Amino acid sequence: MSSIHEKAAANLNIIREKKPLIHNITNFVVMNYTANALLAMGASPVMAHAPNEVEDMVSFAGALVLNIGTLTDEWIDSMIIAGKKATELGTPIILDPVGSGATDLRTQSAKKIISCTKTTVIRGNASEILSLRDENSVTKGVDSIHSVDEATETASALAKELNTTLAITGPVDLVTDGQKKYRISNGHELMGCVTGTGCTATTVIGAFLAVDNDPVSATATALAYMGLAGEKAAEKATAPGSFMIGMLDAMYEITPEMLEKECHIETE
Amino acid sequence: MSSIHEKAAANLNIIREKKPLIHNITNFVVMNYTANALLAMGASPVMAHAPNEVEDMVSFAGALVLNIGTLTDEWIDSMIIAGKKATELGTPIILDPVGSGATDLRTQSAKKIISCTKTTVIRGNASEILSLRDENSVTKGVDSIHSVDEATETASALAKELNTTLAITGPVDLVTDGQKKYRISNGHELMGCVTGTGCTATTVIGAFLAVDNDPVSATATALAYMGLAGEKAAEKATAPGSFMIGMLDAMYEITPEMLEKECHIETE
Amino acid sequence: MSSIHEKAAANLNIIREKKPLIHNITNFVVMNYTANALLAMGASPVMAHAPNEVEDMVSFAGALVLNIGTLTDEWIDSMIIAGKKATELGTPIILDPVGSGATDLRTQSAKKIISCTKTTVIRGNASEILSLRDENSVTKGVDSIHSVDEATETASALAKELNTTLAITGPVDLVTDGQKKYRISNGHELMGCVTGTGCTATTVIGAFLAVDNDPVSATATALAYMGLAGEKAAEKATAPGSFMIGMLDAMYEITPEMLEKECHIETE
Repeated sequence: MSSIHEKAAANLNIIREKKPLIHNITNFVVMNYTANALLAMGASPVMAHAPNEVEDMVSFAGALVLNIGTLTDEWIDSMIIAGKKATELGTPIILDPVGSGATDLRTQSAKKIISCTKTTVIRGNASEILSLRDENSVTKGVDSIHSVDEATETASALAKELNTTLAITGPVDLVTDGQKKYRISNGHELMGCVTGTGCTATTVIGAFLAVDNDPVSATATALAYMGLAGEKAAEKATAPGSFMIGMLDAMYEITPEMLEKECHIETE
Repeated sequence: MSSIHEKAAANLNIIREKKPLIHNITNFVVMNYTANALLAMGASPVMAHAPNEVEDMVSFAGALVLNIGTLTDEWIDSMIIAGKKATELGTPIILDPVGSGATDLRTQSAKKIISCTKTTVIRGNASEILSLRDENSVTKGVDSIHSVDEATETASALAKELNTTLAITGPVDLVTDGQKKYRISNGHELMGCVTGTGCTATTVIGAFLAVDNDPVSATATALAYMGLAGEKAAEKATAPGSFMIGMLDAMYEITPEMLEKECHIETE
Repeated sequence: MSSIHEKAAANLNIIREKKPLIHNITNFVVMNYTANALLAMGASPVMAHAPNEVEDMVSFAGALVLNIGTLTDEWIDSMIIAGKKATELGTPIILDPVGSGATDLRTQSAKKIISCTKTTVIRGNASEILSLRDENSVTKGVDSIHSVDEATETASALAKELNTTLAITGPVDLVTDGQKKYRISNGHELMGCVTGTGCTATTVIGAFLAVDNDPVSATATALAYMGLAGEKAAEKATAPGSFMIGMLDAMYEITPEMLEKECHIETE
């Protein structure tokens, strides 16, 4: 059995060979950046949200990314149509509950997607993940006001309850399905100064899910790859504009060998 | 009483300490760039436009940015819902009437927002600001065909009439509430070669409004900060792609001390 | 009569003198990048999609760009309203049938736009163009699974049938109206690693159509300019993030003289 570090390298390698199509129904802020991230890493992005085409589109896809960052009722309807079709086809679904906890619409929409579809992975910051369980958890806008540590206990129980894999991202990321648990410490603080790095992590997880049947290892290795791209970008850039461009460059330049060697994934 | 230069430094300092949440209902073209600008300067962006969540979201916000760049009737409805709530809460509202004067829909939508909400600041180019008063003022697309000088007379009267602060941006920016008047000469011509620098100026003003109760000084210091970012970017970049990335870098790198020293704000 | 190389230089020169307004109804992924491309090259972008303003806006425009990359029924309706007005005014229309062949909605929407308006140019990859004729042509997502060679035969016949100019882009681009035929070999493989380079080519063609009455020469020279920007960017950048920024820089820096000298356009 291969180590998680070897798995990381293998996953990246397969993405570049197979170029999986990743279907995104995502927010307006990050569409361009996440599409570019998928291309830079070797996958193939498609953004499509019309209710009368999402079933067709998701049928070609290796994974479906649902991100509620700039949601409306109509977009949630499309997400659920696409999510039901993906569930039927066995296509992995990854949900990014952006701002869940900040408004009722976001919290209820995230819960509706979870109840109507088989979400394979849910990625959020600590506040967003906590809000999926605790009605009283409140988020300020889309930035977390809780630490990953605060969310760790809940994560394990919530993952089991929802029968999904949870990824809570922060300075150290936590990935768990309630049994297996990984902590990923790749990353750089400038990632917090670029909009949509969380959303991009979600999309990157989508690409890894398309080639790795184990959601926990797919998610952990994806987050290590994403964090390593941040580290590489920070070797050259010291401010967020050139850093965000440098991250796209790094996603393209990181080889499977580099990822295997430099990923920081620990199991508990 | 502190000078306007000291005020500029103080405002930037408070933004970085308090990280005010800025709620944007803005156009699709600039969402990513303006979110990144807010993060780079130290504020916290949120983009949310669903009619059934904007009241919740604006309640967390330090300022509300309304930008009609890619408007539809539905988005204007959301802007008015959010704007009424912000008015009720006393949260500053800044309106960017993109392309007002170019089409009836834009001119009428801008006027509707102004009549239904208490707009604290309106920022536009000369043609856009003139169109708010003069039915016959016509804009070609979203670029100004009038000079700031042409709009100066109107600006003072219009600011009084609308009981708001007006910012007319161009090579030299004018800020007035009909009584106080500032001219800001920071900036660089490459800013005209990047889409959404006007919209970004509007969002930057939003962040300054969140920390400065005086709309005139908030707006003048914000525009000086924005213009200085252009100057800093132009020290390294000579073409618009790297310039626009350099502006994000500069927004992150400009310190309160630099801003105090290098801002060019004159009163009349 | 001037050569096609001289025509390229002349077109770019007129764009920079006249700064034609290009009205885009396009997808969310590329709006920012294509607006920046138009500004960098010297044209003036406007994005407007509200059904009750597109007729007004297109009346100011030198060309109308219709791009179905993130379509819904409502947006297609707006495209047809704008397209009919442009047809009435004799304003050139360029259609980008993104993902046509991938879903019924896209194929049918592209065909509907073609049947309801006078499209001057249609630009797509080989699969997209083939799908406009062959009901059985299937595309995976938005990337081509056919070569330009496979589409060449169809292109000539289809261009005549639809009475339009077709541009099929790939490593070598083909432009034909069924009689004249050009092949453009400018470009760089990194363009395939950046989202929306195809959509940007479409918008660039829009700007050239605004200043050149011959759709075939306008399209061929636009594609040479676009490809040359890729080549120039690749002189400095080796990864897609900095490459995509470098392309914007190059669009600004390429002079008419450089374009005349370095464009690779061949006629058959």
